[in-house]
Amino acid sequence: MKALVKEKSAKGLVIKDVPVPEPGDDEVLIRIRAAGICGTDVHIYDWDEWSQNRIHPPLITGHELVGEVAALGKSVHGIDIGQRVSAEGHIACGQCEFCRTGQAHICRDVEIIGVDRNGCFAEYLSIDAGNLWPVPDAIPDHIASIFDPVGNAMHTVMAEPVAGKSVLVTGAGAIGLFAVAIARSAGASGIVVIEPNDYRRESARNAGADIVLSPSDDNLDEIILDYTYGLGPQVLLEMSGHPGAIKTGLHLLRNGGCACVLGIPSKPIDNLEWAKDIVFKGITIKAINGRRMYDTWFQTQNFMLREQEPINNLITHRLPFEQFERGFDLLHNGDAIKIVLEMM
Amino acid sequence: MKALVKEKSAKGLVIKDVPVPEPGDDEVLIRIRAAGICGTDVHIYDWDEWSQNRIHPPLITGHELVGEVAALGKSVHGIDIGQRVSAEGHIACGQCEFCRTGQAHICRDVEIIGVDRNGCFAEYLSIDAGNLWPVPDAIPDHIASIFDPVGNAMHTVMAEPVAGKSVLVTGAGAIGLFAVAIARSAGASGIVVIEPNDYRRESARNAGADIVLSPSDDNLDEIILDYTYGLGPQVLLEMSGHPGAIKTGLHLLRNGGCACVLGIPSKPIDNLEWAKDIVFKGITIKAINGRRMYDTWFQTQNFMLREQEPINNLITHRLPFEQFERGFDLLHNGDAIKIVLEMM
Amino acid sequence: MKALVKEKSAKGLVIKDVPVPEPGDDEVLIRIRAAGICGTDVHIYDWDEWSQNRIHPPLITGHELVGEVAALGKSVHGIDIGQRVSAEGHIACGQCEFCRTGQAHICRDVEIIGVDRNGCFAEYLSIDAGNLWPVPDAIPDHIASIFDPVGNAMHTVMAEPVAGKSVLVTGAGAIGLFAVAIARSAGASGIVVIEPNDYRRESARNAGADIVLSPSDDNLDEIILDYTYGLGPQVLLEMSGHPGAIKTGLHLLRNGGCACVLGIPSKPIDNLEWAKDIVFKGITIKAINGRRMYDTWFQTQNFMLREQEPINNLITHRLPFEQFERGFDLLHNGDAIKIVLEMM
Amino acid sequence: MKALVKEKSAKGLVIKDVPVPEPGDDEVLIRIRAAGICGTDVHIYDWDEWSQNRIHPPLITGHELVGEVAALGKSVHGIDIGQRVSAEGHIACGQCEFCRTGQAHICRDVEIIGVDRNGCFAEYLSIDAGNLWPVPDAIPDHIASIFDPVGNAMHTVMAEPVAGKSVLVTGAGAIGLFAVAIARSAGASGIVVIEPNDYRRESARNAGADIVLSPSDDNLDEIILDYTYGLGPQVLLEMSGHPGAIKTGLHLLRNGGCACVLGIPSKPIDNLEWAKDIVFKGITIKAINGRRMYDTWFQTQNFMLREQEPINNLITHRLPFEQFERGFDLLHNGDAIKIVLEMM
Repeated sequence: MKALVKEKSAKGLVIKDVPVPEPGDDEVLIRIRAAGICGTDVHIYDWDEWSQNRIHPPLITGHELVGEVAALGKSVHGIDIGQRVSAEGHIACGQCEFCRTGQAHICRDVEIIGVDRNGCFAEYLSIDAGNLWPVPDAIPDHIASIFDPVGNAMHTVMAEPVAGKSVLVTGAGAIGLFAVAIARSAGASGIVVIEPNDYRRESARNAGADIVLSPSDDNLDEIILDYTYGLGPQVLLEMSGHPGAIKTGLHLLRNGGCACVLGIPSKPIDNLEWAKDIVFKGITIKAINGRRMYDTWFQTQNFMLREQEPINNLITHRLPFEQFERGFDLLHNGDAIKIVLEMM
Repeated sequence: MKALVKEKSAKGLVIKDVPVPEPGDDEVLIRIRAAGICGTDVHIYDWDEWSQNRIHPPLITGHELVGEVAALGKSVHGIDIGQRVSAEGHIACGQCEFCRTGQAHICRDVEIIGVDRNGCFAEYLSIDAGNLWPVPDAIPDHIASIFDPVGNAMHTVMAEPVAGKSVLVTGAGAIGLFAVAIARSAGASGIVVIEPNDYRRESARNAGADIVLSPSDDNLDEIILDYTYGLGPQVLLEMSGHPGAIKTGLHLLRNGGCACVLGIPSKPIDNLEWAKDIVFKGITIKAINGRRMYDTWFQTQNFMLREQEPINNLITHRLPFEQFERGFDLLHNGDAIKIVLEMM
Repeated sequence: MKALVKEKSAKGLVIKDVPVPEPGDDEVLIRIRAAGICGTDVHIYDWDEWSQNRIHPPLITGHELVGEVAALGKSVHGIDIGQRVSAEGHIACGQCEFCRTGQAHICRDVEIIGVDRNGCFAEYLSIDAGNLWPVPDAIPDHIASIFDPVGNAMHTVMAEPVAGKSVLVTGAGAIGLFAVAIARSAGASGIVVIEPNDYRRESARNAGADIVLSPSDDNLDEIILDYTYGLGPQVLLEMSGHPGAIKTGLHLLRNGGCACVLGIPSKPIDNLEWAKDIVFKGITIKAINGRRMYDTWFQTQNFMLREQEPINNLITHRLPFEQFERGFDLLHNGDAIKIVLEMM
Repeated sequence: MKALVKEKSAKGLVIKDVPVPEPGDDEVLIRIRAAGICGTDVHIYDWDEWSQNRIHPPLITGHELVGEVAALGKSVHGIDIGQRVSAEGHIACGQCEFCRTGQAHICRDVEIIGVDRNGCFAEYLSIDAGNLWPVPDAIPDHIASIFDPVGNAMHTVMAEPVAGKSVLVTGAGAIGLFAVAIARSAGASGIVVIEPNDYRRESARNAGADIVLSPSDDNLDEIILDYTYGLGPQVLLEMSGHPGAIKTGLHLLRNGGCACVLGIPSKPIDNLEWAKDIVFKGITIKAINGRRMYDTWFQTQNFMLREQEPINNLITHRLPFEQFERGFDLLHNGDAIKIVLEMM
């Protein structure tokens, strides 16, 4: 089969012919129909410091997918050949205290497809049957292929009820923008976005943000305080991982507010006002990793069934698998939000 | 009346004769019977950087108290002359969104007695009637005088249920030690304390800690991980404000765990592993300020009614008001946990 | 001044001339601009069994209001003559454990205006300054006059997050319909309403319900189960107080679901399947009384600022004060949802 | 092997020779060491109405167990022959929305060992590997055999934090008494028990109750209100399933309190004061079924490791398997709390 492979420890990815994987006893073989490109895939393409430490070539990349069941391992029950499915790409151990208490998303022995083992930028993927997510007919392939990042956003927004509250979103990449759309749908009383990139700021407006700012805006704090009765936003959704955004977000957050933090800084943070911006304000910080298995998937599916337009609008490009280079180019240049590669 | 006054912008405090305050319409005059010395009072005594920025001499210090009602402002109802009372020392504005939603402890216009206005190291204190806390007879004066710091500990421990959970307490000052006693009473399955001072470590053992460590212990991480099945403690109670303790605590905290943070670092924190120690682990951080008005007071009272011995053990010295210098000396030398000054 | 008075222990209300009330020291005199008619007012009009036990004539009725401040008691600060205000009609004692812990809505010594003391169907009302709610200019009088019932609905819906969840609303009276609009705004994935009255069912559809049923529909259970993947709705909002609706709602509620119950049955309930419909299903029941003071008011204000149209649509009639009889007639005949009497 | 069998649709149980079960691919064969007798087993013994509807003889009874792994199905990994284990007796489907969202305890397709399929009153039991619970050496067999009912109590008590709160326990059967011990350990400020049986009342005192009452006590309400400052208990643990106890408990519960209800009435409840005792009081009711898989097991294990004495005291009899008739006699006569049958 054809697969998009990180062949060696260097920049770039190549399409190669590789063997179709054989599903293990508890696994299922999926024929991939579409797969989303994630920022993580861009890191792997670029062979940045994180990738150099984490990735062991050769590796088939990709972890956002939809496809159809092509073969079943011999211990698998209750799944049909031909069934359309997405899949959770985090393979948790299933045995540890986290896995046994509904917290598989923070299993310490997790393996991620396309990162720690072969992924879904390929014609076929073999994955544990327990990780499958059957997809209702009403959700088209290109939307179903991005359960994973929409799920990240859903997990973040659902961590703290936003109905009737003012929300600040720092970072309007794809996941941040999904978070804007979800917070809008979930009844936020006002949504402010801070994002440096013009194109993303425009997308934030379209996704439902009420106020869209650049971190370089002169009177950013003042505008946000004015909009929130001088008190600051009630909820912070930190989607950027940028140290400045994290600090700005915590600084503006209202006393007693809640920060849901998903963004991953590449380095430790300096000069964090722990006393002033956290302790004295009595805030809560909820750190978000992955998607709850499978609470988040049910929530995401309900959202995809009801509100396809905002998601559709954020899938800026649907490209044939073979044009993957164009997809990575668009993302490098900041000219795309979400790109889906179509395999069949 | 006699009062313990910060007379000018310099180290030290003096007992002075000052006028008895006149209660305003909504205020009550309390004849003080006993008052606890807080770490904040030591900062004010020492005239450290924080004090120099915050305190405007002349000021009567002290904010932990018990006394009896001596006079009533003319609009005050439902309180009797002679009634024994403690009082919440945070005077909230009563008008803002925080005050109107049960969050007066994070009112931004709060004034603290003994810090922003005259305090209770004196024969009399005038304070808002709404801040009074009637004290049941079964709670003796020296214990009733420290509702405030026991309440800080209670607020911290109650922020996250500890029953059946492993708890790490970083910092065994008076409030940290009260937290140990409260966590023990609330059914923590195991309590580990990290504290550099020998005397406080000994007190931690007596207060109910199962394992007591010094930050300088060689294999501190290993011991704590061993004790917690390799997963780390489920709850962190950060009572020190020390950057190293904050980082160690977050580093050791179990995936999905909860950090309740009360300690106040004197400076911003550097080199915080936001990604590794917070985001990826999916933890929650709950910042604690003051005492919930008055949920925490009810909880503290219930604790004082049921478990006086552990509190009593932590009140290492009861001194006549006039011997205040000895009290501050003992605290400076780390030879005391909680000191109560007795006025009458 | 003119006031709508229950003059004696009999059916009906009359407009009478009565003295303008004198505000107490902590009270404020409000010149009423508009006032909503509540179901409770209809009970009082009708002099039903509940009224006969609770109401002591003569009494000025009414408790949903907007007006402007006309005079201040001498201890009142921070309020201006002429300020436009609504007011919480539950006068809590302010002293009890409930009042001191942010739960004034369940104070056991509460007095309700228009029920236990004179109300707002009058030119003037005197009420505790602490109960005032300043109204932003952007909320017009007729909407501001019904903070109280919209707040009941808000309190019920906010008791359990509904974003992305299926919601069953039993009872589409005014408060039930506000609940539909709020649940829609808060991102419910699907809203089913059960209501016997045709006019109200039509209103439910307009307010945002996805499926509207009558309790007499043959295959009601089947339709609701089909709509909820065979599992039942995730949230029940019980707004009717009708024993049959309570039982149907609990019966249909999904395992692990949450029932928020506001409706007040007039008698004890018989034949409740405690084991099958409650215990085995592991559900949660949250009982709702009044409005949280003043969390619910902030939430309601945010909703009124953002979504006036659905509220406006449910105010089916705005009548001059003098035409109150017509208002009560419309409500008796089930030909209105919410009626606002306009005083000036 | 020998097994305790419900042979036919009639009262009684017999020890019979039956074949040792063959573990399925995903199952494990456990050699049973000890097994607790549950009230459910007594119902089955008695062949009461519930049993007649639910049980299909022939059936091996029993569902509380400890044993050692004797054989592994061929797909089972990570478990060793000889390992000492208890097991969750609820076999959930693993596929439904409940199972996929950490709520397997309310799976609608659950099968219970000893009820819906063969149980553990036998020399061997075959059970799904995923249901095993490895037991630490520090927990002796007779205690480890009752993870199930101690877990029911733990699930109930942990549903609402009790630290510093007044708790009313209605019903002091074995699970009610475990709940008393757990609530004591978890820092309840006061525990009141209502129980008609003298022996159980005495046990409640020993388990840590502060006040123990009989439902026939004249001034029961008054005593409980006096003990709770006139407000009623803050938490109700309803362990009896008796309609009178449910109604008394809800009636006494404080405004805003929380009722955790585990007891199963045999019939629907009449004359429940839904308005007065539930809605107006703004209480919360949390219904409890089984044990959370496997959060409750971790909590129960922590409790068993730290507090064996109270559990030990409630295991009033340890009998050889062959003396099962004596065990059922003792339970019928109300002369025992928890009885463990020892197989080896």
